[in-house]
Amino acid sequence: MIGKFISIEGIEGAGKSTQIQFIKTYLERFNQTVVVTREPGGTPLAEEIRELLLKPREERMSDDTELLLMFAARAQHINQVILPALSEGKWVVCDRFVDATFAYQGAGRGIHEERIAALSEWTLAGLKTDLTLLFDLPVDVGQQRVNQRLLQKDRFEQEKTDFFEKIRHCYLERAAAEPERIQIIDAEKSITAIEQQVSNILDKLLKKV
Amino acid sequence: MIGKFISIEGIEGAGKSTQIQFIKTYLERFNQTVVVTREPGGTPLAEEIRELLLKPREERMSDDTELLLMFAARAQHINQVILPALSEGKWVVCDRFVDATFAYQGAGRGIHEERIAALSEWTLAGLKTDLTLLFDLPVDVGQQRVNQRLLQKDRFEQEKTDFFEKIRHCYLERAAAEPERIQIIDAEKSITAIEQQVSNILDKLLKKV
Repeated sequence: MIGKFISIEGIEGAGKSTQIQFIKTYLERFNQTVVVTREPGGTPLAEEIRELLLKPREERMSDDTELLLMFAARAQHINQVILPALSEGKWVVCDRFVDATFAYQGAGRGIHEERIAALSEWTLAGLKTDLTLLFDLPVDVGQQRVNQRLLQKDRFEQEKTDFFEKIRHCYLERAAAEPERIQIIDAEKSITAIEQQVSNILDKLLKKV
Repeated sequence: MIGKFISIEGIEGAGKSTQIQFIKTYLERFNQTVVVTREPGGTPLAEEIRELLLKPREERMSDDTELLLMFAARAQHINQVILPALSEGKWVVCDRFVDATFAYQGAGRGIHEERIAALSEWTLAGLKTDLTLLFDLPVDVGQQRVNQRLLQKDRFEQEKTDFFEKIRHCYLERAAAEPERIQIIDAEKSITAIEQQVSNILDKLLKKV
């Protein structure tokens, strides 16, 4: 039996972390073994690459470098963590996956979509999420939440509103293009309402197992 | 005026470092400003990527990850160091460049050449070395030199003879395919003989300036 692969997407402040814990607990109630992981990262080496990506630095990181580091970490993560877990029948819940690269490096940085698609084809080799939950909210609401929470912002969090608008727009476009795989969750609703919607979606996926 | 771009290639123990110093001094005698740099590396960020690539670790680095990290470092290096220096009319002498990726990750690791060629086209965007000096010698001779010199071997130096045979073979094939750009230097000869050959080749390039 092959496990299910779920990714969680959304701009900064969308409440992904809280929901990931809810999803894990919910799936475990149905006797699934759940591996929670994240991108960039998920293995010791990929976490070191994450550090390089997030750390603010004087040297300007070129957009190509950012994109290639993302996929370098992803190749490692898929090989070491995601594929082995799925093949053991575990469910994998991943905080961000390849949709984030289309949104952040594609729409955000302006890298051609075809380039990302080509790298994606190579490194994913057919791997696709069974479900992607897109926690959507207006950029200014997300920013406010982040500002309340963070003392030190990483290289991405330091970006301007305009950058996150592009990302949100790209996420919504991708959801419109693949409405089955990518489900939009209104992240401005109450936690109870969000959890209700998430558990309904998970129920459908659980029935498919 | 655009500077000239020279890369130095060869397997471990071929004597690249000694020759790079000779080349720098030789070119400076002809009033060229010379930037000596290396790959992977050459900028603070790219040197951090180099660390990730060379450090022996328990976690097996996937071949795709290795390839993508190489090009991530290269994109940064080209953007921050190589192109700016060349456009200022400086000569750039680089310890390894893209031919090394075809040799190490292509022939050595067995990654398809077309994949490397595609990444190369993207990140190099037309940049080509004016001259590549291939310091060639039998693998066992190189290995002996390395063993005498090193206490701790990096992730590549720890590879077996077979790996370096493939790399040497690939380098020689590339030189045969582009004999104008890639010049083979017999690295088993005396230092005086090598320096004579190198300076003859540099003289031709200097005349083209």
